[in-house]
Amino acid sequence: MLLNENRLFPADENSRGIAKRLFNEVEKLPIISPHGHTDPSWFASNKNFTNATDLLIVPDHYVLRMLVSQGFKLENLGVIGKDINTEKDKRKIWKIFAENYYLFRSTPSRIWMDHTFENLFGINKPLNQKTADFYFDHIGECLKKDEFRPREMYNKFNIEILSTTESALDNLEFHKSIKNSNWNGRIISTYRPDNVIDPDFDNFKENIDKFGEITNEDTTTWTGYLNAHRKRREYFISLGTTASDHGLSTANTADLNNEEASKLFEKVITKIANSHEKELFRAQMLTEMAKMSIEDGLVMQIHPGSHRNHNKNILDIFGRDKGFDIPQRTSYVDVLKPLLSRYGMNSKLNIILFTLDESTYSRELAPLAGAYPSLKLGPAWWFHDSPNGMMRYRELVTETAGFYNTVGFNDDTRAFPSVPARHDVSRRVDCSFLATQVAKHIISEEEAREVAIELAYKLAKVSYKL
Amino acid sequence: MLLNENRLFPADENSRGIAKRLFNEVEKLPIISPHGHTDPSWFASNKNFTNATDLLIVPDHYVLRMLVSQGFKLENLGVIGKDINTEKDKRKIWKIFAENYYLFRSTPSRIWMDHTFENLFGINKPLNQKTADFYFDHIGECLKKDEFRPREMYNKFNIEILSTTESALDNLEFHKSIKNSNWNGRIISTYRPDNVIDPDFDNFKENIDKFGEITNEDTTTWTGYLNAHRKRREYFISLGTTASDHGLSTANTADLNNEEASKLFEKVITKIANSHEKELFRAQMLTEMAKMSIEDGLVMQIHPGSHRNHNKNILDIFGRDKGFDIPQRTSYVDVLKPLLSRYGMNSKLNIILFTLDESTYSRELAPLAGAYPSLKLGPAWWFHDSPNGMMRYRELVTETAGFYNTVGFNDDTRAFPSVPARHDVSRRVDCSFLATQVAKHIISEEEAREVAIELAYKLAKVSYKL
Amino acid sequence: MLLNENRLFPADENSRGIAKRLFNEVEKLPIISPHGHTDPSWFASNKNFTNATDLLIVPDHYVLRMLVSQGFKLENLGVIGKDINTEKDKRKIWKIFAENYYLFRSTPSRIWMDHTFENLFGINKPLNQKTADFYFDHIGECLKKDEFRPREMYNKFNIEILSTTESALDNLEFHKSIKNSNWNGRIISTYRPDNVIDPDFDNFKENIDKFGEITNEDTTTWTGYLNAHRKRREYFISLGTTASDHGLSTANTADLNNEEASKLFEKVITKIANSHEKELFRAQMLTEMAKMSIEDGLVMQIHPGSHRNHNKNILDIFGRDKGFDIPQRTSYVDVLKPLLSRYGMNSKLNIILFTLDESTYSRELAPLAGAYPSLKLGPAWWFHDSPNGMMRYRELVTETAGFYNTVGFNDDTRAFPSVPARHDVSRRVDCSFLATQVAKHIISEEEAREVAIELAYKLAKVSYKL
Repeated sequence: MLLNENRLFPADENSRGIAKRLFNEVEKLPIISPHGHTDPSWFASNKNFTNATDLLIVPDHYVLRMLVSQGFKLENLGVIGKDINTEKDKRKIWKIFAENYYLFRSTPSRIWMDHTFENLFGINKPLNQKTADFYFDHIGECLKKDEFRPREMYNKFNIEILSTTESALDNLEFHKSIKNSNWNGRIISTYRPDNVIDPDFDNFKENIDKFGEITNEDTTTWTGYLNAHRKRREYFISLGTTASDHGLSTANTADLNNEEASKLFEKVITKIANSHEKELFRAQMLTEMAKMSIEDGLVMQIHPGSHRNHNKNILDIFGRDKGFDIPQRTSYVDVLKPLLSRYGMNSKLNIILFTLDESTYSRELAPLAGAYPSLKLGPAWWFHDSPNGMMRYRELVTETAGFYNTVGFNDDTRAFPSVPARHDVSRRVDCSFLATQVAKHIISEEEAREVAIELAYKLAKVSYKL
Repeated sequence: MLLNENRLFPADENSRGIAKRLFNEVEKLPIISPHGHTDPSWFASNKNFTNATDLLIVPDHYVLRMLVSQGFKLENLGVIGKDINTEKDKRKIWKIFAENYYLFRSTPSRIWMDHTFENLFGINKPLNQKTADFYFDHIGECLKKDEFRPREMYNKFNIEILSTTESALDNLEFHKSIKNSNWNGRIISTYRPDNVIDPDFDNFKENIDKFGEITNEDTTTWTGYLNAHRKRREYFISLGTTASDHGLSTANTADLNNEEASKLFEKVITKIANSHEKELFRAQMLTEMAKMSIEDGLVMQIHPGSHRNHNKNILDIFGRDKGFDIPQRTSYVDVLKPLLSRYGMNSKLNIILFTLDESTYSRELAPLAGAYPSLKLGPAWWFHDSPNGMMRYRELVTETAGFYNTVGFNDDTRAFPSVPARHDVSRRVDCSFLATQVAKHIISEEEAREVAIELAYKLAKVSYKL
Repeated sequence: MLLNENRLFPADENSRGIAKRLFNEVEKLPIISPHGHTDPSWFASNKNFTNATDLLIVPDHYVLRMLVSQGFKLENLGVIGKDINTEKDKRKIWKIFAENYYLFRSTPSRIWMDHTFENLFGINKPLNQKTADFYFDHIGECLKKDEFRPREMYNKFNIEILSTTESALDNLEFHKSIKNSNWNGRIISTYRPDNVIDPDFDNFKENIDKFGEITNEDTTTWTGYLNAHRKRREYFISLGTTASDHGLSTANTADLNNEEASKLFEKVITKIANSHEKELFRAQMLTEMAKMSIEDGLVMQIHPGSHRNHNKNILDIFGRDKGFDIPQRTSYVDVLKPLLSRYGMNSKLNIILFTLDESTYSRELAPLAGAYPSLKLGPAWWFHDSPNGMMRYRELVTETAGFYNTVGFNDDTRAFPSVPARHDVSRRVDCSFLATQVAKHIISEEEAREVAIELAYKLAKVSYKL
């Protein structure tokens, strides 16, 4: 077997026993996936996936980055780039992965993969050079079957709702198509307007123009631009969206008056804004989005702190999301003050904050979320979406913010088969944290059971208004 | 029972057994409370407290902030504010607290409260909606009795000495009255001159004037101003004070010559100083305080790193200390250099450093305290005065600074009944840390016993010269 | 006995049993010591060490700093300084250490010392005031014997290779002498050019002149200066060197073109460079060193983040490395970008990054090393070369970077007898980390065994090209 039933539980017998009992209560609960990056076209078309490599390696930046860090080249791992020969032999790529699977020891990728191999594909021998062909063939065979199509997987995974993420310019055709189909899976989108908010985004000016066209607003004016946001948010909401997402590099906010903001916008769209003004614009837009959230009820997610595309060469050839986004030191206290002074005490505002800088958990985020009614903390994110990362999150956050200023789990995945694996890890780690609290007589086992269900299911549903 | 005798001890049987034996040695030791914010008038007048709400909720910013973070309003929790209707029905407020007591799960507030409920008031059923009235009535009855008056509680809690904190302008009337009474409790003050050092403090100029009046010094001159400090320190010392406390937002220090300092002071009191000059003045004053400490022997506490009153609205309406002080990134290495270059090697100087930025424990504070004879580290502070916070403190500090560059525990409380609860937590966590060291054969159990007593009692007494 | 066979293993029986089995596999493996500061003359002359104090106290800044932090003066601990009377009575110094040995409880110094006392000198009673004379006499007797000479210790310690560190100006006479001797110990040097790269280094200009003389290059020109580096690197390589080391205060890098670099160099050597330009020069030189590493194959170690000589008085009187180097907040992501954009994807480049700022492990270092093929992470360094420090390193690094982007252990020691003690600690902690992974079913015990051997022996050998 690849998976032990006691995996991730505490090592001492006392805590482990409690963790098992708690996990029993949550293991089978439906999955709420309120934030992720799966492709809605999968569920619209429900076409079969093709092979193990294209399903599990090529789209997974966690896997790519580890192999690249050990000297493998993206083109040899099946990634398509400008003016570059990409390996076409999927089996050959799979073999590279299999031979180097030991590199992933003690990383979450290994846990997610083994979970997928055993639970989805029924494999119970370890992946390595010897078993590489068997794996490739077996997974390929499975993927041809109806039961391995996206909608069937969605059902098998016991997903209750799955959120994808689309740009402000997306027409949500796949979401419409799913809604109009006779399938009862619930796939909703998240409003992500970075490409019309961040003046440094590729093709920002063109994006603004397109933003005007699709909303029938004059996006060369501040008022028209804000109206365009309002209309797109409304459109997303009409198709089920309950949240927006903001992935700027900082959490800077501003509180300009209308005249100042209007002038700043003019500079930004006429491209004469300097870098300070561009940052001020992004900062002001977070506050504007908060204001709109109060009006239309969208939950507002703020995901700062990633230095995107650290390697320009990789970006130029292979594009975004290839494993070269690196976390950086991130501030919250000072920079959120303009927004929070303005709207922070308003209970109609629901902001969910994330971080890649774990030093802010106990220093800034838990104290902020433990004071402002408008703030909650998102789960351990990205690099920290891992057993130790999640445990640190609970240990650093809970004593100041409690459990009820957190929002359950986000899988944040691009790799659909890993969805149940990630929720399984999260549930096991939360139950382990709670088991230690029970073993140390900080809370009772009865309380822990109640909290375990909140963390695994209820809090995500409530916090994201699902 | 609300409290298990093994609470907070390690989960594995081996370490837990050791922890229990160590705790046995320290559980009954008298409490040294060298830093806190209880009200000396309680002990001067020895009047009965009135009801559970006014005793346990209204003055406790930990409790208020958690309830506010979940949407409750300060005025509905009994807090008085400008032009605002405050809830007068104490029972109604208590019921809000009781119904929402689950929010505090796994927070230190819950531990302190349960400790108070069971050990002080003899209650052994959990607080919730159903038991709310019983609690309110029972605590109210208790508080009417003589044995629940402040002095009687002080004795019951086995306190040997309790420090309060007063501003440089306080006349210490309550301390005098206690001293002149026939009660033998030892309540001393701490000299906290922030309001005459920080040019940004409310009414700074008026404070300086008053500072001159009560010391009969010309505080419009640098020399007179420094003399005023010397005289007030002397006055505090005459009433038992052994320490000063400095709660500025940074740990910046400066080392100006007399002429520079004198010119700067002139700018500061004539209000023409800019923000850089004001910060320089605060920085210079830390160095001046260090110099006076060498002269008069006061232990000098530095508590930087809180962004006070993050929400201006709350400040304007409800005032300070209502749960909206948020920690921020704090530096020590560079900014303490001017002071340490001047006086850092002087063994007559005793500085105790605190932090709200845990990333500095192993990076800056333990290395500094493990080198300079004038520096010691205060315990895990405020948001980190919690089981995991204390454990992180020991884990991050001990390997570089050892135990003997730390100063035992501070309860730092405003809520008198929580004093014994907080010392109980600290003793349990330190014994747990030591037990793990013994279980891993890093130190012997005999050594651990000696250290446990130092951490629970002796180090505080020696470090604060009590 | 001073040492328990289960020391440092996890407290719970389950994990401890696994840790013991893993440790069994690595305990006796030869020591690879690829980075340290022992004195090559010891091995060249193979003279006996003289007494316990000069062997174990005077050269050990960890020991000195702890005693100084408690009020002892360096001159009374045998350290020689300018215009200062240094204690000559070695026994008296030893007694101070013995009486205050309790200060080191739970610090790594205590572990290393006890290991040396028991394993090297066969002592099995604890050091304290009573046993001080016995220790001093017994160690003194031992040191007179042939078997306690440096080469004999090297063999006894089962060292396979030991690296020292020499400046770019060192003639490596002792390394030559060792090489030409009939002893088969392998002592190699590390190329450390800080004193000809850092314009703020003592006697920088004189160093540059000497650099020119010994390489027969015109080091007043940029080209000549770079050639001098090339020649010295070649010379070091000819005597076995496989790595360079760079201990600047930041990890700043730059990517100037040749003309810019040449102009900057001119400013730097004519001493008209301002502090910004000096920093830019250091930054550019890291990139130049990376370029040379690609050419000549030297592994490049970067050790930033220490605020050297925090106390100027101590520096002026006693010189460097006396315990007053203090870690400071350190950045990697932005500042390494110029170097990494230029050479980061080149697999011929081997950079090993270290830090004293543990907040960067999970935030910056593991993500960078888990993406760039040229980057690996050095082990927990200096203040963090301790049981908890090493454990935090594995916990914070592994989930993102895995095991294979780390490089095994460095002892980094100046105190030769502590070499086996430090490797023992490292092996025990790594086995404990792995045991917990096995106990939690994250990896199999068979995998853990393989990894344990990598961490204890193979990775250091491969990463440093030994």
